[in-house]
Amino acid sequence: MSGSYDLNALFAPKVVAIIGASATPGKIGNTVIQNLIDAGYEGKIIPVNPKSTEILGRPVVKDVAGLPHGLDLAVLTVPKQFVLGSMEELVKIGVKSAIIITAGFKEVGGEGAELEKKIQALCIKNNIALVGPNCLGLINMSDKVNVTFAPGQPLPGRISCFSQSGALFTSILDWALGEKVGFSKFISLGNEAVLNESHILEYLGNDPDTSVVMGYMENIIDGQKFIEKVKEVTRKKPVVVVKSGVSSAGAKAAASHTGSIAGADNAYSTAFKQTGVIRAQSMSEFFNLAQAFSKASLPQGPNLAIITNAGGPGIMATDACEKTSLKMVQPASATIESLKKVLPSYASFRNPLDIGGDATATAYKAALEEIVADDSFNAVLVILTPTSTAFEHIEAITQGLIDTIKKTDKPVFPCFMGKERISIAEKMFQNADVPFFTFPEPAIESIETMYKYAQWKEREEMTYVVPERDKAKAAAVVEEAVKTGAAEIVEYQAQQILKAYNMPALASDLATTADEAAAAAEKIGFPVVLKIASVQISHKSDVGGVKVGLKNAGEVRAAFTEVTERAAKMRPDAHITGCLIQQMAPKGTKEIIIGFKRDAQFGPLLMFGLGGIYVEILKDIAFRLVPLSKEDAHNVIREIKTYKLLSGARGEKGVNFESLEDVLLKVSQLAADFPQLTEADFNPVLVNSERAYVADVRLALK
Amino acid sequence: MSGSYDLNALFAPKVVAIIGASATPGKIGNTVIQNLIDAGYEGKIIPVNPKSTEILGRPVVKDVAGLPHGLDLAVLTVPKQFVLGSMEELVKIGVKSAIIITAGFKEVGGEGAELEKKIQALCIKNNIALVGPNCLGLINMSDKVNVTFAPGQPLPGRISCFSQSGALFTSILDWALGEKVGFSKFISLGNEAVLNESHILEYLGNDPDTSVVMGYMENIIDGQKFIEKVKEVTRKKPVVVVKSGVSSAGAKAAASHTGSIAGADNAYSTAFKQTGVIRAQSMSEFFNLAQAFSKASLPQGPNLAIITNAGGPGIMATDACEKTSLKMVQPASATIESLKKVLPSYASFRNPLDIGGDATATAYKAALEEIVADDSFNAVLVILTPTSTAFEHIEAITQGLIDTIKKTDKPVFPCFMGKERISIAEKMFQNADVPFFTFPEPAIESIETMYKYAQWKEREEMTYVVPERDKAKAAAVVEEAVKTGAAEIVEYQAQQILKAYNMPALASDLATTADEAAAAAEKIGFPVVLKIASVQISHKSDVGGVKVGLKNAGEVRAAFTEVTERAAKMRPDAHITGCLIQQMAPKGTKEIIIGFKRDAQFGPLLMFGLGGIYVEILKDIAFRLVPLSKEDAHNVIREIKTYKLLSGARGEKGVNFESLEDVLLKVSQLAADFPQLTEADFNPVLVNSERAYVADVRLALK
Repeated sequence: MSGSYDLNALFAPKVVAIIGASATPGKIGNTVIQNLIDAGYEGKIIPVNPKSTEILGRPVVKDVAGLPHGLDLAVLTVPKQFVLGSMEELVKIGVKSAIIITAGFKEVGGEGAELEKKIQALCIKNNIALVGPNCLGLINMSDKVNVTFAPGQPLPGRISCFSQSGALFTSILDWALGEKVGFSKFISLGNEAVLNESHILEYLGNDPDTSVVMGYMENIIDGQKFIEKVKEVTRKKPVVVVKSGVSSAGAKAAASHTGSIAGADNAYSTAFKQTGVIRAQSMSEFFNLAQAFSKASLPQGPNLAIITNAGGPGIMATDACEKTSLKMVQPASATIESLKKVLPSYASFRNPLDIGGDATATAYKAALEEIVADDSFNAVLVILTPTSTAFEHIEAITQGLIDTIKKTDKPVFPCFMGKERISIAEKMFQNADVPFFTFPEPAIESIETMYKYAQWKEREEMTYVVPERDKAKAAAVVEEAVKTGAAEIVEYQAQQILKAYNMPALASDLATTADEAAAAAEKIGFPVVLKIASVQISHKSDVGGVKVGLKNAGEVRAAFTEVTERAAKMRPDAHITGCLIQQMAPKGTKEIIIGFKRDAQFGPLLMFGLGGIYVEILKDIAFRLVPLSKEDAHNVIREIKTYKLLSGARGEKGVNFESLEDVLLKVSQLAADFPQLTEADFNPVLVNSERAYVADVRLALK
Repeated sequence: MSGSYDLNALFAPKVVAIIGASATPGKIGNTVIQNLIDAGYEGKIIPVNPKSTEILGRPVVKDVAGLPHGLDLAVLTVPKQFVLGSMEELVKIGVKSAIIITAGFKEVGGEGAELEKKIQALCIKNNIALVGPNCLGLINMSDKVNVTFAPGQPLPGRISCFSQSGALFTSILDWALGEKVGFSKFISLGNEAVLNESHILEYLGNDPDTSVVMGYMENIIDGQKFIEKVKEVTRKKPVVVVKSGVSSAGAKAAASHTGSIAGADNAYSTAFKQTGVIRAQSMSEFFNLAQAFSKASLPQGPNLAIITNAGGPGIMATDACEKTSLKMVQPASATIESLKKVLPSYASFRNPLDIGGDATATAYKAALEEIVADDSFNAVLVILTPTSTAFEHIEAITQGLIDTIKKTDKPVFPCFMGKERISIAEKMFQNADVPFFTFPEPAIESIETMYKYAQWKEREEMTYVVPERDKAKAAAVVEEAVKTGAAEIVEYQAQQILKAYNMPALASDLATTADEAAAAAEKIGFPVVLKIASVQISHKSDVGGVKVGLKNAGEVRAAFTEVTERAAKMRPDAHITGCLIQQMAPKGTKEIIIGFKRDAQFGPLLMFGLGGIYVEILKDIAFRLVPLSKEDAHNVIREIKTYKLLSGARGEKGVNFESLEDVLLKVSQLAADFPQLTEADFNPVLVNSERAYVADVRLALK
């Protein structure tokens, strides 16, 4: 039960046995063997079938017992009722890996789900790298392996892809065939009884034949493990995913489809962002990025040049660029001088560089050569509209561009706007492994995503610090609350936790008599706030349980008596501990909400926003998964749209950000320390130019 | 100079003369004739050339004088220096319309621009419907006319398209050829010396052969006329435009490209929205909408059904749907019963309807038949992933869907996810004139746009009212200010205008002495605000010129003396009229900003937003072009994101919306009444549950 599976045996097996091999063309047990043969597989194929002697020219073995010991890979296509038995037999011959293509397990629930649990336990116990059940199989073009029943063979290439949906697997393959995009590995994950996206990511991260990892996901079973594995991969190569089930309706559909509950989409988005995973928002973006990342190098800066044979598309591309973080700088003056020698006088000699509707191959090639040689630019978009001249010279123009693109290490994206008559160019670019776009917008968006990934790869290491705290003291409070069966930790108990974590709170003390209250107020300093303290009374103002702006000891004493007497009368059921005496909030503070919610997949998801209408109406919130690094604490504050309100809008002083970041890191630590805390609201946290104060806190328990 | 041009002569000429006809293939003067012949033109073609006798089998006329009187259409391809002379000759024979393909006019500036002005004046004087100069020409497939030099012939169809860019014209044609999308009219507008988008829109609106109008625009010369014409068209058929030059950088490129200054993008967006013009945000959206509108009927409601052979894409489509105003309702129970009879038991029987990866033509057809028969749904998306079964039956599945689609009047959008092996289906759908998509997201976005357009078509008439006002009184103030050369109308003068328009202002009066100030304050009621009144002092607080919360006559007198003396000392240059005494703002009010800015193309653009940070930091603003209808005034308030703050968030009372709408209509009227006012800020307008008050106003003059 080590959990370290032999994925080499799975992806590059020397021997493959097909359990349920069939001599009938069209049957899955036949298609898998045919695909393996068509892929040019160089290892040994052993069909297993009790009745046949030869299938597709390969000698057949009668049963699993007849297979060689230490078999690399078994592919199971037998009916559902025979799967567990076959797996038990395979354990006996010490199989290293298996793919169960057969469906009818967890996804149908009931008996199927029970059966899958047994198979899962068997594989885990015996360290069998299992893919499926209920999957299409896998492809490894680098080693000429194709054990799927998907029609057709993909082209070889450097993208590796995993899919939690078999149908999407076929769509991606078909799209890739049409676009001449090639793959190294391609895995249909099925029900993920043993191997899931985290195992595959780890393997693909270390795979020298994989340059880009793509994935279609519906859910992640172990969020923490995913985060741990994927952030190692994104250090080395881009990971692009499409994650469905964003909407509440979508999430419902996901649940019924995969038989497991999808996590909240915010947690997914945050996990992807914090680990550098690129999340495509649609299938078309997914495919555009596959093309871009696999066929072009990363831009080393934000500066985009646009070459075009028409003004209109140049303007549209400029519009599209302005929506991104890319920049449209101007060419160096030396470049302009050189361009003037090779282009006609009516060219624009600025960015976008309009070389005119009658530009031929010479103009396109010369312009691109000058632009890629100019250090001002990090990426180039080359637009062509099929004017009569362009149409006449389309092959020469395309060839000239390809020749230049092959000599530069900057990403160059041709964008030929049309369909019918530019199709020859599309094919030429595809065959030359150059990314090709029909519209400027998706090309520019792809370049921006690549630029952002280049920045991610170059980023500094994050700094994680454990803030000083008295964990034992906090633990005592939490455990006591759990013991009493309380749903929440509030007020005095919550204040104890703030103290244990050195969180800057408004000074406060619990008083059980009017005299104690007056003494506490003297100590804190006037004016003070007085609040009824009772575990049973959560809505204090309903019982008139809050008095603000008390200016002296007399007022405090009177308030104590009034508040406790009224509460006792109105809520005879409640045990009244006394009153909480609290420092008044200083002036000029901004209200902040900090909170966390424990996500089923990813653990505590921390939320940051400005209090009141900003969170409630404008939904201006930023998220991070716990633990936060120092950089996270810094950045999460700057991610909200209303950040300017904190940094000093309209001539105000900015708030003390360090103090706010300190609170964030301590909330993060608290969430990490106590899994018993399911949700928390630090609301409001008050902050001015001096410091931050936690004015109120509620901690929800399991 | 009537301005009513004979566009029938232009689009459906009985006789066409080509001035500058050439016998040399590849020359524009030859290509135009060849295109006309290839289009199957049934009228008379007269090549005009001094040297040839026959071109492409047509007898040549030596000069313009030899052309028949009252000629329908002359197409000019002669060099620039001969264009004006040719036009003068054409006037003599009473030509009805002309297309100048030749370039080198306004777009190059200088002499070219001068020449264009002469041609323009000539055509306007003689009522010649001129297209160009600097254009590709026009196509009218309904009447077999093609007088362009663009390569190839489009397919006939019901879309008509205009383009302000010749290059984009070629892109759109090529895309349409590839997608088998057909056109009725196709016009390259060039420099728009005479005919512009407004003339063309009016013509296409009345054209029985045009069902959908598409346009590529860079700028509009006469915004008011565009609005007037286009809103008549959108009543009858959809108008879809792409407008470039959105970004500041893009607008710069537009200016250098078209030789005219582009209007602010907000004004364009607002004009499109107020007239029901559908603005595509990208070329791909433009093309998707062309396909959708021309090949499918409008959905009569928001309810979308999704049929799919795979769960994952169903979830993704559901996600995409949730981002729109479309709804995913469930099938009627009778439909579910019927579906159970025709689909396998493992189908999902809900929306999205997952019919399984092994669905064949029978399942697809039966599912679609049941779904389109169900009144619950207004539109259907049919997803196919190329599973082995789907791939095997793809032609039968496609044919079955086509047969069903042809029988229903609901829009049905097939979305086949892939490229290589689904291409046969794509071709079949194209040939059957059924819209086809590769990805669910753009299909769903297109359906939503069609649904919104269907709602626009059904909308109520707008109500325009002229609020009661004393225009003469306001005019006197404005004219006086203009006469004195003031840059702004502020304070007392501005208050007079508010009064003339019956705008609810805070009570205020001008006092020239301390006693007058005290008397004014008594009349208004304490407390009051006192502000220095001087045309030269616009930043009053810089000279300590504002005192708030004055509680009695004594305080008012003292403040008057203090404020006027200090201002006189600090600004000896300024003429001090006295002080303005103003009612204090009532409590519980929200601050609103209402303003307008006169746009060069579209006239006054009115702005509405919440004051302070909402406008400044969150840019939460809504726009309308003047005049506002009553419905506009109602809706513009509800368009901002922070609307909930006005309607009564967190238990507050909502504001008096009628009172706010009244102010909006009066500001609109003021902007319409006085073109001298270039900009205005009613800031703040205060509003509570009782009423609105204009607390301050600045009106900028030309």
